[in-house]
Amino acid sequence: MKSLWSETARELSPYVPGEQPRIADLVKLNTNENPYGPSPRALDAMRAASVDSLRLYPDPKAADLRDALATHHNVKPEQVFVGNGSDEVLAHAFVALLKHPKPLLIPDITYSFYPVWAQLFGVETETIPLDDNMQIQIDDYRHDAGSIIIPNPNAPTGIALPRSEIVRLLDAQPNIPVLIDEAYIDFGGESTVPAIANHPNLLVVHTMSKARGLAGLRVGYALGDENLIDALTRVKDSFNSYPLGSVAQAGAAESVRDEAYFKDYCSRIVTGREAMTRELTALGFEVLPSSANFVFARHPDRKGKELAAGLRERAILVRHFDKPRTTEYLRITVGTEDDTQRLIAAAADILNSD
Amino acid sequence: MKSLWSETARELSPYVPGEQPRIADLVKLNTNENPYGPSPRALDAMRAASVDSLRLYPDPKAADLRDALATHHNVKPEQVFVGNGSDEVLAHAFVALLKHPKPLLIPDITYSFYPVWAQLFGVETETIPLDDNMQIQIDDYRHDAGSIIIPNPNAPTGIALPRSEIVRLLDAQPNIPVLIDEAYIDFGGESTVPAIANHPNLLVVHTMSKARGLAGLRVGYALGDENLIDALTRVKDSFNSYPLGSVAQAGAAESVRDEAYFKDYCSRIVTGREAMTRELTALGFEVLPSSANFVFARHPDRKGKELAAGLRERAILVRHFDKPRTTEYLRITVGTEDDTQRLIAAAADILNSD
Repeated sequence: MKSLWSETARELSPYVPGEQPRIADLVKLNTNENPYGPSPRALDAMRAASVDSLRLYPDPKAADLRDALATHHNVKPEQVFVGNGSDEVLAHAFVALLKHPKPLLIPDITYSFYPVWAQLFGVETETIPLDDNMQIQIDDYRHDAGSIIIPNPNAPTGIALPRSEIVRLLDAQPNIPVLIDEAYIDFGGESTVPAIANHPNLLVVHTMSKARGLAGLRVGYALGDENLIDALTRVKDSFNSYPLGSVAQAGAAESVRDEAYFKDYCSRIVTGREAMTRELTALGFEVLPSSANFVFARHPDRKGKELAAGLRERAILVRHFDKPRTTEYLRITVGTEDDTQRLIAAAADILNSD
Repeated sequence: MKSLWSETARELSPYVPGEQPRIADLVKLNTNENPYGPSPRALDAMRAASVDSLRLYPDPKAADLRDALATHHNVKPEQVFVGNGSDEVLAHAFVALLKHPKPLLIPDITYSFYPVWAQLFGVETETIPLDDNMQIQIDDYRHDAGSIIIPNPNAPTGIALPRSEIVRLLDAQPNIPVLIDEAYIDFGGESTVPAIANHPNLLVVHTMSKARGLAGLRVGYALGDENLIDALTRVKDSFNSYPLGSVAQAGAAESVRDEAYFKDYCSRIVTGREAMTRELTALGFEVLPSSANFVFARHPDRKGKELAAGLRERAILVRHFDKPRTTEYLRITVGTEDDTQRLIAAAADILNSD
């Protein structure tokens, strides 16, 4: 019956997201969600938008949300593109900007959805290995190419590049689109957004699922020169005119306006990450230097797979990527203090067992 | 600077949705929204879902919503696919099921997004003209092809085919995917969903933006054999793992469970359509026989463009498609009784003027 499928559908290798089990008393450190709730003002705005006017289509241009984001990031509303999670924004960017006759440069260890979009949309890729310290080296991205995508901080390593390194890349590659995926930038990284003014080939993508604590709402966005935003809008308007519902637009806009909550929230995660790193290190883990809301860590005495399984038996979910260079590591989300205590206790228990 | 765009972005001709102005006292009959609000139970469910747990990703499988839809339509949950509005569902269907070496058959007058998706995804199409009465003739779709898409009722004509005609098509074309877009089926048409059991090549697409009055929420779905749903899921999981947020899933599921509200709602629209048709006919309009929540009408004495402009001057928005076979027509959404009275008064005023 696969004869009814298109060739594309037959050949795909879909992305596999982290599990979303709804198990009571589970310590869920596998999908980099925020352990605290979103801004209460955002929730109020969503409830206020859950009214009869939902009978109307939402604003296809999401003007209010884009205004709020433009103000927050000090850019023009015309430099903002919004979508149904940063995954949709990235998917449109693959079609609109990253697909060229020459290949897209992509790190070998990175967000595992990138190669899936490349396959879906027929984007040729060239994989660039991280160095031996699991770091991105900008000099490896200076040769002839069609486009570049780099997450900063990278996932799942959590390691960030300083803005000066990204700018050095932009200066070396001024004629091709360079996409910097800043999903995790708000936990201590240095955003490249200020470079948009002088680099018309730079697109920066953000999500509201991490630092904004709104993974359940599905809102992401891109910032860049108006010309790049126009290309994204053309693809969006050829795919789905109304990707963001009215409730999502209202909640996201109010979240962006609640600057105080956001800053407090991010600083709590940074504090939690530092504590988690200290305690894991004390147990003998090697923890990569993270600027994200997760750490990437391995232990010299135990296999990654074994550690992940042991934690799971103790009702603690972490993410394990079973690929050659990552198989010894666990990606562990920074949760609450209590989450971290339970994680550390469980890890100690595993390390003390035979 | 278009050198930064992909070839796809450069060549697209995006869809143009109906306007969404927020003007006070406007009679908005241009985008087939429902004039009454959605189920109050759906709104309650949405407010109840606007809570701290939005920090978590939504259920990527939307199990509760798919269960509700399966019960409503008397199919299995595995026969249900949900997406971010029926536009996203249709877009995925173009990629997963409608793209084949042989062309997709498509009516010449139909939902104007179809050719846009075909262009975006490189789907070859063969356009089949409606007959002289603006009707789809199934016998025109029986020849060699890769796939077929037909809206029932068709838009913007509003004319429906009986289920027996669709089944005749399915029997004639058992080896290629046949997509029936039932966006407007609940206003008097005869759904093809019962034919799914015996036709593994049939995919039926529905929206919650029309009869469910939830255009602002962005939920649509497809029903079909599990094999077709698998193909859609593969494409969805290669594009966006979490297309529907938690609030949208909760609101949509409760709307589907509120059967009484839904039935009452649809019957009010049918009554309103009959009244609107009578009154337009009394003014000399020729109104095509509609089974949708809109009518497609022309007047022998006035050009379509002139009528649309005249109504707009009187704060009444209708949709005018300026293409050869449709340029004399207006597509007018069935609104409230008051909306219809204002429409009729304005139309009479235009017809009485020079």
